[in-house]
Amino acid sequence: MTTMATHGAGPVDTRESPWATRQPLPASAVTIRGGIWAKRQAVNRDSALPHGLRMLETAGNLENLRIAAGRSTGSYRGPVFMDSDVYKWLEAASFELARRPSAPLLAEVDATIALVEGSQESGGYLNTHYQLAEPERRWIEFDHGHELYCAGHLFQAAVAHHRATGDTRLLEVARRFADCIDGLFGPGKRVATPGHPEIEMALVELYRETRERRYLDLAGFFLDQRGHGWLGPGRYNRSAYYQDRVPVRTATEVEGHAVRATYLAACVADLYLETGERALLDALERQWRDMVTGKLYVTGAAGSRHLAEAFGQPLELPNDLAYGETCAAIGSIMWGWRMLLITGQARFADLIERTLYNAVLCGVSLDGQRYFYVNPLASNGEPENLSRGGCLRKDWHLVACCPPNVMRLVASLGHYVATRDASGLQIHQYLPATIDAPLGDPGPGGRGRAVSLRMDTTYPWEGRIRLTLDEGGAAPWTLALRIPIWCEGSPTITVNGAPVTAGAGPDGYVRIERAWARGNIVDLDLPMAPRFVEAHPRIESTHGAVAIERGPLVYCLEHADNPGFSVLDAEIDVASPLSARWDEDRLDGVTVVTASGFAVDVSGWSQRLYRPLRTGQSLPRRRTELTAIPYYAWANRGAGAMRVWVPRAIP
Amino acid sequence: MTTMATHGAGPVDTRESPWATRQPLPASAVTIRGGIWAKRQAVNRDSALPHGLRMLETAGNLENLRIAAGRSTGSYRGPVFMDSDVYKWLEAASFELARRPSAPLLAEVDATIALVEGSQESGGYLNTHYQLAEPERRWIEFDHGHELYCAGHLFQAAVAHHRATGDTRLLEVARRFADCIDGLFGPGKRVATPGHPEIEMALVELYRETRERRYLDLAGFFLDQRGHGWLGPGRYNRSAYYQDRVPVRTATEVEGHAVRATYLAACVADLYLETGERALLDALERQWRDMVTGKLYVTGAAGSRHLAEAFGQPLELPNDLAYGETCAAIGSIMWGWRMLLITGQARFADLIERTLYNAVLCGVSLDGQRYFYVNPLASNGEPENLSRGGCLRKDWHLVACCPPNVMRLVASLGHYVATRDASGLQIHQYLPATIDAPLGDPGPGGRGRAVSLRMDTTYPWEGRIRLTLDEGGAAPWTLALRIPIWCEGSPTITVNGAPVTAGAGPDGYVRIERAWARGNIVDLDLPMAPRFVEAHPRIESTHGAVAIERGPLVYCLEHADNPGFSVLDAEIDVASPLSARWDEDRLDGVTVVTASGFAVDVSGWSQRLYRPLRTGQSLPRRRTELTAIPYYAWANRGAGAMRVWVPRAIP
Repeated sequence: MTTMATHGAGPVDTRESPWATRQPLPASAVTIRGGIWAKRQAVNRDSALPHGLRMLETAGNLENLRIAAGRSTGSYRGPVFMDSDVYKWLEAASFELARRPSAPLLAEVDATIALVEGSQESGGYLNTHYQLAEPERRWIEFDHGHELYCAGHLFQAAVAHHRATGDTRLLEVARRFADCIDGLFGPGKRVATPGHPEIEMALVELYRETRERRYLDLAGFFLDQRGHGWLGPGRYNRSAYYQDRVPVRTATEVEGHAVRATYLAACVADLYLETGERALLDALERQWRDMVTGKLYVTGAAGSRHLAEAFGQPLELPNDLAYGETCAAIGSIMWGWRMLLITGQARFADLIERTLYNAVLCGVSLDGQRYFYVNPLASNGEPENLSRGGCLRKDWHLVACCPPNVMRLVASLGHYVATRDASGLQIHQYLPATIDAPLGDPGPGGRGRAVSLRMDTTYPWEGRIRLTLDEGGAAPWTLALRIPIWCEGSPTITVNGAPVTAGAGPDGYVRIERAWARGNIVDLDLPMAPRFVEAHPRIESTHGAVAIERGPLVYCLEHADNPGFSVLDAEIDVASPLSARWDEDRLDGVTVVTASGFAVDVSGWSQRLYRPLRTGQSLPRRRTELTAIPYYAWANRGAGAMRVWVPRAIP
Repeated sequence: MTTMATHGAGPVDTRESPWATRQPLPASAVTIRGGIWAKRQAVNRDSALPHGLRMLETAGNLENLRIAAGRSTGSYRGPVFMDSDVYKWLEAASFELARRPSAPLLAEVDATIALVEGSQESGGYLNTHYQLAEPERRWIEFDHGHELYCAGHLFQAAVAHHRATGDTRLLEVARRFADCIDGLFGPGKRVATPGHPEIEMALVELYRETRERRYLDLAGFFLDQRGHGWLGPGRYNRSAYYQDRVPVRTATEVEGHAVRATYLAACVADLYLETGERALLDALERQWRDMVTGKLYVTGAAGSRHLAEAFGQPLELPNDLAYGETCAAIGSIMWGWRMLLITGQARFADLIERTLYNAVLCGVSLDGQRYFYVNPLASNGEPENLSRGGCLRKDWHLVACCPPNVMRLVASLGHYVATRDASGLQIHQYLPATIDAPLGDPGPGGRGRAVSLRMDTTYPWEGRIRLTLDEGGAAPWTLALRIPIWCEGSPTITVNGAPVTAGAGPDGYVRIERAWARGNIVDLDLPMAPRFVEAHPRIESTHGAVAIERGPLVYCLEHADNPGFSVLDAEIDVASPLSARWDEDRLDGVTVVTASGFAVDVSGWSQRLYRPLRTGQSLPRRRTELTAIPYYAWANRGAGAMRVWVPRAIP
C-alpha cells in the first residue's frame, strides 16, 4: 500500500485512445483555488464524504459487506444495488485523495476496501445481495438484478483508487471479478444484456488502466447484445425502458429510463473512443440532437417522467411534475465529456456547464448533507411526495444512487476544466484555478513541454477571466478558449492588453497561437447581463412564461427572497430591465437578480377551479420587485414555493 | 328462470334507505327516446356488448371460468381481476335486458351465468385466479389480490340480473359467496381491508335486495378497518394509495388511486344512506370539496397522475400528461349520485352531467368498440404510450376495467335522469325521454299516484326543453327542475305559456307546485351560448389559456377539423365572438363551435428548446378560423393532435 500516485489520470483516461481528438489532463493538472467550486470541494471533503460513510453504515451497505466477509452476522438489507453506493463512495474518496491527500480519509478507504476484499469469493464473484440473500438467483435477473451494474461501479472505484494511490489491492479485486465475468459471458459463452448500463464504460476504463484487451472486447460484446428486446418484459413491459428496443448503432432517440439512457450513451462513446466505429458516433450524434432539441429542461435536467424515471416525448417538460433525477444529469455530463474528447466541440462543454450548475449542483444542499433525487422546476412548497418533487431534501435515499454520484463528480471536477491536443491547450470551464499541463512530448518534434497558468475570475458571478502564464512552454502553442453559448454580447479578448480580433471558430473556441512567455496575460471578458429566456411555444408548462438567466446560471424565484406574496402568484414584466447585485450574505454568497413584476391576488378564485372568462377584468395585482436567486441554491431555507418559469404579465 | 322483472329497481335502490332524501325511480320509469343517449344506448346494445363478449372470450376471461367449471382445461390467463370484467359485462347486459328485453342477449347472459355458477365451489368460494393459479394464496393478498373486489362485482351483477329478470340463479351464487365471506370476516372473525373498494357498496346493495342485515354489517365492518395502514407497504409503499392512511370518518382529502378513492366514497355514501351516521357524511362533504376545488379537470376527469393512477396535489392538473381514467370518472358519478340521493343538491347533478358528457363519453369510440383508459386533455398526435395518453383507442385493454364499466353505465343511464321525494318529481338530467313515475302511495294521504310526462329536447345541442304531462297524478305535486351551473344567462320557464317567476332555490332547482293535468306543458329554456372558460391561475398547464364550452359540453380543437396548421400551434382571440352551428354529418352529428384565432408559425424554433427572449418580436402568425368539436367525440378520425386549452393570443 502506498499513497503515491502512479500516473494520476482522472476518471476518463483517453490519452491512448486513438479516437480522442482532445486528451484529458492528469488529475493533478488542475487545482481549483476559489469560488463556488473550491467551496463545494471543501464541503464535499469535510461534510459530504463523512456524512456518506455514516449513511452507508446506517443504511446497512457496509454491514452487508461485513456479513459477506464473515466479520458479522445477520441478513442482507436494502435494495439489490447496495454495494454500488459503497463503490461510488470509494471512487469519490479516491478522487479526493488524488486531489488532496488525507491520512484519515485514506484510513477509511483502506478499511472499506478491506471489507470489499474480504467479501470476494475465491472465484472472483462479489455481490453481497446475491451472496447473502439470493445465492440461487445469480446471473439470472439481468433486467433488474444490477449484478453487472454493481460490478461496473467496483471497477470504476478500483481504477480511481489505483490512479490516486498506486495501491493495486482494489484493482486486483476488480480484475478477479472482471475475469470471472469474462469467463462466463462473451462469444461462445453466455449471452447477457446488462439491465442498467455501467459495466460497459467501467470495462473500457479497466482496459485503459490495465491494457487488458479482453475487457474492452467484453464491453463491446455487452453493447452488441442490445436491441433484441431481451430486457423489459418483466418490468414496465417495455424494452425502451432498458434501451433494448433497437441496437445501439441504429438508435435515433434517447428514450426510457434517463439514467440508463445517458449512462449507455457514455458507454457507447467510450467504445467509439477505442474503436472508431463510425456507426457508433453517428448514433450518438442523433441521440444527442434528439435530447437537446426536445427532451431537456432549461436547467439541463434530463428525464421528465416520474413514471419509469424516463425521458418523455419531445417537448414533454412539465415543471412542477419534472423528474430530472440528479444521476441523469450526471449521466448527461459523463456522455457530454466523452463527446467533447471525441469532437472537441464547444456545444458539449456548453451543456456540461449548464448541467453542472443547474441540474447537478441543485441536487445537494449547501451543507453537503441533504440531497434531492428529483429536481422539479417549480414547487408549491409541499414536502417531497410520491410523484411530485417536494421542497425538502433528504439526508439519504432508500435508493441512494444520487448522493455518492454527486460526491464523485465534485471531487473530480478539475478533470473537466481543460484538455490538450497536438496544437495546445483548450479551456472549457472557467473558474479560479491553476493549470499545470504537459503539452506534448518533450523530445525532438514535440511542441513544447509543461505549461503552467493561473486562471483568476469570479466566474460564474462575473464574466471577466484573466489567464496569467507562469510557464509558457518551450515552443509556440495554441490556447483555445470556449465562448459560452449563453454569451449574448460580444466577448472581448486581449493578450497583454492587445485585442485579439479573431472570433470563435465553428467549434465554438477562440484560438490564440503564439510563443507564450511567463507573465503573459490573457483577459477574456464575457458580458454577463441578466437575461430573459423563452421556451419553445409548444411546451405546455412554459407557454407565455419566461425564465431568468445570468451567465451559466438559471435563476428561480423562491419564497424566502420574496416575502409578502407567493411566488406562485407572480407575474413578470419583461419590459422592465433586470438588474444584478452581489449578495455576500445570501446562500453562501450569490448574485441575486431583481425584476419588476406583479403579485397577483388570486383569493377571488378560492373554492373553484374554472369559471367563465372575465375579459377585461384581470385579477387584482400590485407591482412588486421580484428577487431571483440561482436555482442551484434553492431549498436551503426551509419549506416554501419556488419556480423557474414565471408568466409574463400581459400589459 | 323468467324474464319478468320483479320490482325492477335500477342499480342503486335506496327506496327503503332511511337517509335518502330523494329516491330513485324504477328502472322502467325513464325511457330515453332520442338524441345522443338513445344513440349511445343502441350502440351499446348492438355493438359494444357483443364486442365485449368477444373480447372476454379472446382475452381468456370466459375460458378461465370454463376451466374452473371443469368444462375445459388449461391455465389461468390474465391479471388477477379477470372475473370482474365478466361480472361487469353481466351487469351491463342485465341493465340492457331491463331496458329492452332481448332473447339473444338473454341467452348469452344465461350461458355466462351457467359458467359462473359452475365455477363456484361448494363452500361458496368463487375466484378463478385463486382457484386455478394460486389456490394456496387465498385470502392473503388483500392489497392487490382483488378477491373481494371481484366478489363485489359478482354481487352487483347478481342484483342487477335479479332486478332485470326476476331470475334468482346468479343472486343465489352471490349469496353463497357473500355468506362464505361473512363466515370468514367480521368481528370475532378475521380482519381484512379490501385493497380495492367495491365489495362494500355491493354488500349494501345486496342487503337492499335481500334485506339480509349481515351484508350491511359486513360492509360497515370492512369500512371500519380502513385507516390503520394495513394496506400499502407492498406497493408504492403508501397507505394513501389505498385510502388506508386515515379512517373514513376523519378523511379530509381525496387521495391515492383515483378509482379506488371515488369507489370508496360511493361505498361510504351507501353506508350513510342506511345508517345516517353524520361523521360519514361530513367526511364525504370534505372530500368532495377537496376534489372539486383542486383535483378535477374541466372535463370532470378525476386523477391526474400516471404514476399510481392517482389524484395529484391540489392544482396538479397537466393536460397532455393527464391520466383521467374512464373508471375514475364513472366512480365520481357513482359517488355523486349517492350524494344527490342524500342531499338533493344540484351541485352533484351538475358534476354528474359534466363528467358524463366529458369524462366518460370520451372513453368509448362512436362505434362502441374502441376505448380509452387514459383521457388526456391534449395530445401531440402520437399513439398511446406508457405514460402519456395517446390519440388512438384500443379495442380492449390488458386491464379491461373501463370498457364494461362504460357499458353498464350507458345501459343504466335512465336511472340517473330523475328522482322523486314526498313533494314530487325532480328532473336532474335533460334528454329526450318519457318518464313514468310513481309518486307516493296511492292510498289515503298519499300525494297522487303515477305521473307520466314526455321530455322533448335536442339537449345538449339546444337548451330548450319541453315537458308535456301525459298523466298528471291525482293531487298537486312539485316539479323540480335543475338549473345547470353552466347556465350563465337567465333561464326562462313557462307553464302552459305563463311565465314562472321563481328562480332556483339554494339547492339549485326551480320548483313548480300545482295540480298537474294531462296536456300541461312546461317549457324550460336554458340560454346556451358558447363561452370561454378560464382556469385557476395557479394551474401550470392552463395559464394564459382558455377552453370553450357550450351547454354541458367541453370542446376541443382536433386536427381533422383544422387543416392547414397544427392545433398545437393555435392561439385564440378571446375578443372575437364564438359561434355555434349544427353539423349533421360530423361525428354522428354535433354542434361545432368556431372561434377566431391564429395559426402560429413555430418553424423558426426548430432545433432548439430555449432562447433569449425576443421582446416585440412575436412569432409569425396568420389569422384563421378555429373549429372546435365536443371533446367527447375526439379520436374517432385517425391519429392527430388535439387540445382542450388554447393559449390566448396576446394583442
